[in-house]
Amino acid sequence: MFESAELGHAVDKETYKVEAPTLRNALLQAQLELLEKGTFPLLILIAGVDGAGKGETVNLLNEWMDPRHIATHALGELSDEERDRPPIWRFWRQLPPKGKSGIFFGSWYTEPIVCRAYGTQRGAKFDRQLEEVVRFERMLVHEGALILKFWFHLSKEHQKKRLKSLEKNALTRWRVTEREWKNFDNYDAFRSVSERALRATSTAEAPWTVVEGYDERFRALTVGSTILRALRRRLDEVKPEEHKAEPPPRGTPSIDGKHLTGSLDLSLSVPKKDYRKELEKLQGRLNMLTRDPGFKKIGVIAVFEGVDAAGKGGAIRRISAGLDARHYRIIPIAAPTEEEKGQPYLWRFWRHIPRKGHFTIFDRSWYGRVLVERVEAYASEADWRRAYSEINDFEEQLGRHGMVVAKFWLQISKEEQLRRFEERQKIEFKQFKITEEDWRNREKWDLYDDAVCDMVDRTSTDIAPWTMIEANDKLYARLKVLRTLCERIENAL
Amino acid sequence: MFESAELGHAVDKETYKVEAPTLRNALLQAQLELLEKGTFPLLILIAGVDGAGKGETVNLLNEWMDPRHIATHALGELSDEERDRPPIWRFWRQLPPKGKSGIFFGSWYTEPIVCRAYGTQRGAKFDRQLEEVVRFERMLVHEGALILKFWFHLSKEHQKKRLKSLEKNALTRWRVTEREWKNFDNYDAFRSVSERALRATSTAEAPWTVVEGYDERFRALTVGSTILRALRRRLDEVKPEEHKAEPPPRGTPSIDGKHLTGSLDLSLSVPKKDYRKELEKLQGRLNMLTRDPGFKKIGVIAVFEGVDAAGKGGAIRRISAGLDARHYRIIPIAAPTEEEKGQPYLWRFWRHIPRKGHFTIFDRSWYGRVLVERVEAYASEADWRRAYSEINDFEEQLGRHGMVVAKFWLQISKEEQLRRFEERQKIEFKQFKITEEDWRNREKWDLYDDAVCDMVDRTSTDIAPWTMIEANDKLYARLKVLRTLCERIENAL
Repeated sequence: MFESAELGHAVDKETYKVEAPTLRNALLQAQLELLEKGTFPLLILIAGVDGAGKGETVNLLNEWMDPRHIATHALGELSDEERDRPPIWRFWRQLPPKGKSGIFFGSWYTEPIVCRAYGTQRGAKFDRQLEEVVRFERMLVHEGALILKFWFHLSKEHQKKRLKSLEKNALTRWRVTEREWKNFDNYDAFRSVSERALRATSTAEAPWTVVEGYDERFRALTVGSTILRALRRRLDEVKPEEHKAEPPPRGTPSIDGKHLTGSLDLSLSVPKKDYRKELEKLQGRLNMLTRDPGFKKIGVIAVFEGVDAAGKGGAIRRISAGLDARHYRIIPIAAPTEEEKGQPYLWRFWRHIPRKGHFTIFDRSWYGRVLVERVEAYASEADWRRAYSEINDFEEQLGRHGMVVAKFWLQISKEEQLRRFEERQKIEFKQFKITEEDWRNREKWDLYDDAVCDMVDRTSTDIAPWTMIEANDKLYARLKVLRTLCERIENAL
Repeated sequence: MFESAELGHAVDKETYKVEAPTLRNALLQAQLELLEKGTFPLLILIAGVDGAGKGETVNLLNEWMDPRHIATHALGELSDEERDRPPIWRFWRQLPPKGKSGIFFGSWYTEPIVCRAYGTQRGAKFDRQLEEVVRFERMLVHEGALILKFWFHLSKEHQKKRLKSLEKNALTRWRVTEREWKNFDNYDAFRSVSERALRATSTAEAPWTVVEGYDERFRALTVGSTILRALRRRLDEVKPEEHKAEPPPRGTPSIDGKHLTGSLDLSLSVPKKDYRKELEKLQGRLNMLTRDPGFKKIGVIAVFEGVDAAGKGGAIRRISAGLDARHYRIIPIAAPTEEEKGQPYLWRFWRHIPRKGHFTIFDRSWYGRVLVERVEAYASEADWRRAYSEINDFEEQLGRHGMVVAKFWLQISKEEQLRRFEERQKIEFKQFKITEEDWRNREKWDLYDDAVCDMVDRTSTDIAPWTMIEANDKLYARLKVLRTLCERIENAL
């Protein structure tokens, strides 16, 4: 993997003097074009061995290009707000929006590689982390990001030389500390772990470029021209004319006619007098759970999806009534804002992921991607199809971080929906709850039904299972939601 | 101040049963109207003595209204990201956008009152804090916010009773800890400090409502109806027809013809060969300063404003070239995004305020309010006139937190601007830098000039002084910027 980067590549002064200004100018032009078009973000990842010129190159890029539209992120200490969320959260919040560039000096590779090289992490976990990285980057690329990854390499001998020369110079001495020498002693382990990481994560959509770091001019021209080439290719791409995506045909009908939503017993109900008592009991139980000392180490993310008029709002209010207002937040999902549109679709949900010890309720959620966006063809078929595994990855991050992810699908029958729509139209107080759109959605009942069955089949996981709620009887539905939630939290504590 | 709240107010069950449902319904309606109109945010502040029903009331409001559009903020421990910024930052990031509501359970009053009551803070500082609060709230109200402040009071005797009864009940025992009894022992001091705070901050635009907290029904109806009344009044307000604001006439000409920008010696220049050497020296000096151990305790906010084509970008790049890309961020200010438009105008700058130890450069800034927004009449005269002191308050927060606020105005002559505009049009590479708008702005030269002189006169403070940069000679300008910056940082270290 590193063979070509130990050849002692170098560029002489004269060549550099001729090539650098042209390259610089072309890079700046490409960057401005990117800004103007605003069609995708540019992510530059910088990694590699100490003393190989990573910092110098980052500074150079900021000098060559317009630094106002580049955000450089160094991998500092985690803040406590970051520590309280899944590890990848810190990177989500740093993603550049479309049109802008982000340089990650230290990235999602740093921690896995360092921990593995120092033997504090087992190989199996390392492999899993690399696999996650591949999936994360693939998602970013599918969402439009241009990702360029640079690995700065030095042969062992060159690294030693370089560290010594940095140490000799009074101006650069501060850069070589014990840590750098310790890393050097560990050169071979670091090299082998890095090689494994690069091999596993050098994908077609986000390949690594290994740069020999010994000669300043060589690495500047290498990195600069690699960025320029990739950027130009994306900018010059002639996009095939956008077809208005077609809504998918109905799914294959089940051979025996049975299907998930149809198999729910919607006649389930609970007598009103039992309801009151049970509701209070469950709310009390929920309240006590959130006051359990162990709750500070977990956190709850409850997701509500359902047929229109299935009673999501009512169920949510029965939960919040059991909680202390200081501890929960309800996030109603509407159309994305302008800032949210500049980011991958999961970004607007990541930004609301709570710290540990908190309770967040999503009223509609990231599942819009495989429900309304699928049925209304707002997303292409390729896009919503890949969303299933992207969402599973997302929820796995949350679950592995100790959060309870509870997802509820509220189902009512088509007849019951009609009854509720008509009731809403009659009662002045409820008229705002029924719109033309609701009626239009109702006409697409079967398409939504297909989407729901697919969604549950593909995203109900051990970590984040779906609970189907029979909601023709609102009282029954509310109790089942509360009970499920309590059980999930109890299991996690 | 608390006399009426020690009368033993109470509402009987029957009255409550009649009034509560109507009130609840009306509140919900008003909240939905607010959401639909999206014209202003509602801020509800909850403060007062322990055991007076603050928490219960907050929960009740969330039950009565639609909790999806209310964010309740409890005053938890400061996160390290918050500790690294001025104290008010945590509240800025929690402000509800237009159309939504925020309940602050614990607010900007909490710390000053508690510290003063326990004697850890001197009276003079307390008074200053109250004065700042008044100014902060006034700004919010001017920006459209509806602020309702509730103080929950109990007589000493009632508080004792209440704490005892909470202690007796197994379900509420957890709420009474040593802290609550310690507060009770300190009742008289707490009462007198609170009274002082309420008196000083009960302003016409954001008055306090003192609520006797002994009777649950009384406090529910009191708070609910107060919110309803205020909300309805704002919603029903008939706005006077919006006049397109007129750009102000030119300022009064100076008696002797002298004025600030005109008095700059724009012939100042520096020979090219001296420039190179000096530039390198200054960049090195700046770089060393940011590596000073003391730099971690401060931070720099550099603001660039100037005549079009005065060379802001070039000056900024000479600074960033001296810094390590990991330590600075450049924030180019363009039109506000949709999310930013839903907030007070300073919000979009507060969100970019860096943690300590960082260097942030604003390419244009909050001064747009008193420059382009004044000249183009995007802001009404009343709005830009109040901005001077709001900006001074903002910068005082930053300065008092230890940040260096360095502001640069780059001035060129009208002839020099013409020369640069024409040059830009000639050179293909620079054409993107010159637009129709630049020519239009040029026609308003004198109006801008007035605005600049006013701006400097009104916002050049000890904490955050303006530095006027004579920029006809770019080289001279860049050196003066760098030198000033170095000196400011040296003084702060």
